[in-house]
Amino acid sequence: MKLSRLGEFGLINRVRRTIPPSRDVGLGIGDDAAWVRAKTDSFFVTADLLLEDVHFDLNWTSLSDLGYKTLAVNLSDIAAMGGVPAYLTLSLGIPRHFTSKKLDHFYHGIESLAVQHNVAVVGGDISVADKLLISACLIGHAPYRPIRRSGAKPRNDIYVTGTLGDSALGLHLLKSKMLRQRGAAYLLKRHHKPTPRLAIGALLARKGLATAMIDVSDGLLQDLGHICRASLIGARIWEEALPLSRAYRELAGNEGTRYALTGGEDYELLFCARQSDRQLIDQLQRRVKVPLTRIGACVPAKQGIYCLDRSGKPISVPVIGHDHFKSKTSDSND
Amino acid sequence: MKLSRLGEFGLINRVRRTIPPSRDVGLGIGDDAAWVRAKTDSFFVTADLLLEDVHFDLNWTSLSDLGYKTLAVNLSDIAAMGGVPAYLTLSLGIPRHFTSKKLDHFYHGIESLAVQHNVAVVGGDISVADKLLISACLIGHAPYRPIRRSGAKPRNDIYVTGTLGDSALGLHLLKSKMLRQRGAAYLLKRHHKPTPRLAIGALLARKGLATAMIDVSDGLLQDLGHICRASLIGARIWEEALPLSRAYRELAGNEGTRYALTGGEDYELLFCARQSDRQLIDQLQRRVKVPLTRIGACVPAKQGIYCLDRSGKPISVPVIGHDHFKSKTSDSND
Repeated sequence: MKLSRLGEFGLINRVRRTIPPSRDVGLGIGDDAAWVRAKTDSFFVTADLLLEDVHFDLNWTSLSDLGYKTLAVNLSDIAAMGGVPAYLTLSLGIPRHFTSKKLDHFYHGIESLAVQHNVAVVGGDISVADKLLISACLIGHAPYRPIRRSGAKPRNDIYVTGTLGDSALGLHLLKSKMLRQRGAAYLLKRHHKPTPRLAIGALLARKGLATAMIDVSDGLLQDLGHICRASLIGARIWEEALPLSRAYRELAGNEGTRYALTGGEDYELLFCARQSDRQLIDQLQRRVKVPLTRIGACVPAKQGIYCLDRSGKPISVPVIGHDHFKSKTSDSND
Repeated sequence: MKLSRLGEFGLINRVRRTIPPSRDVGLGIGDDAAWVRAKTDSFFVTADLLLEDVHFDLNWTSLSDLGYKTLAVNLSDIAAMGGVPAYLTLSLGIPRHFTSKKLDHFYHGIESLAVQHNVAVVGGDISVADKLLISACLIGHAPYRPIRRSGAKPRNDIYVTGTLGDSALGLHLLKSKMLRQRGAAYLLKRHHKPTPRLAIGALLARKGLATAMIDVSDGLLQDLGHICRASLIGARIWEEALPLSRAYRELAGNEGTRYALTGGEDYELLFCARQSDRQLIDQLQRRVKVPLTRIGACVPAKQGIYCLDRSGKPISVPVIGHDHFKSKTSDSND
């Protein structure tokens, strides 16, 4: 059905039916504001804006994947604080030619991940717009002291969860129409449906093991830069320690570790920890079954941020962190 | 300075400097998520989307007023639940040609109202966009039991705060270039800078006096319709009881009460209360110094919603409630 037939209130009612109620929600969609439970003395709030033709291209992503990813990127921010996600508001600007079926796909994508992490969609706003726009705000409980970006110290170890570069390489293969190669589907899935690392994020906070943490959304070096600036430290990364998936190794070709170092949207957690806690972190890894790889060390600020190759020589990497306002053409993606 | 020179991170730093920190915020802008205090066992969340050329036109509003109104409409939703506003996230899509000075005006508009109501801007997102877009999410504490839309009963009284129709008439005068008339400036100010009724909203919740409440954003009859549908009741309104400002009476001309009945964006509170509480509501009114006017009564659902003129005859009002998806051309406004 065309949205112009369904109308704004019809659409809101449809959303209410699509999204199941949650026990923690006193009052969800349909009043002036949602009314929800505060389970802890403090909570987290994060917001993300996703715009068609800036952050995503509907030629390259399905609406279901887009819904999934909208929630995933916000969950990843809560994970990077050590929080427990709870409530989502979702404001949408929708082109008039959209059908309600397309919207259903989008909401099902959201819902598939929301169910896994006990997230309730509690409200939002809907308007007509020239292009699809998605604005999400996710609230999470804070049962433990937050892990900020600013607590790392020189000589701390640097770790990352999972593998790096898969998302950016997957997007590259998609854009280059090289999806038939073995492993490409895996990489593309990592791009469209990243795994927010909530369990490990919360465990690190609970045990007080991470001195600083961030999620890798802009690219490893750029996000490491955020930690370094906030913590007033430098960092060295060992190229050969970077965790790469089998598909990445097979398909990166001449690009080597470039996507792993500078590609964005992996949504893995990057964190620093005391050397004396290495054993505890090893134990943690076995418990959550997410690979944790030690990829470098914090150094004094004046030594800067660099990556060493196998022979110990700093490698030069063009830091291609994206700035929407500075670049004329967008190389961002969904 | 052009935003393309300032860049995304430069812009975020500028926002951080513009917006003063708050004591209730453990961690504001600049980490993966904000970390804020939960002062009550539950809280409210509301979200609003404001799009250029759908909800506002930069030819008719200043950026400072737009900032003020962005916060005001969200505050009004919290007021309508009986809550106490606390934390705001603000996601902006900004055209590349914008200057940082324009953004400063916008943030100052937000800030002028945020300071009055102790609201802290704790996060958000920024992106380049074709047209200006504003997506806000406001979180409020819930010290009292929320006032929902659904608790009104037949024979309850119906009240409204302040005066009705000023905002829509002000917008009409602006569009018709009739601003030179006496009183027009007052009406336009009511349109651009509505007063969210937080004190009276919270008092009604604290004293348990309102059986149902909503803020008048779509227009009196349409918003009364929301209460009636949620409460399964009907309603009668007395036309001659509608509270009209002096400027409205002088300038509405042939339109009579049309703007008061169907014009949107007054952001007054519309609520229902037991007849037995009339005296308490009178006392309340004297305390908060906001006019409260009894404008009608709740009736059984089967009697519908109607407005009676002086002679007791139902008047026919075209309900012009706006639906973005159903109307081809937008008659909405900022």
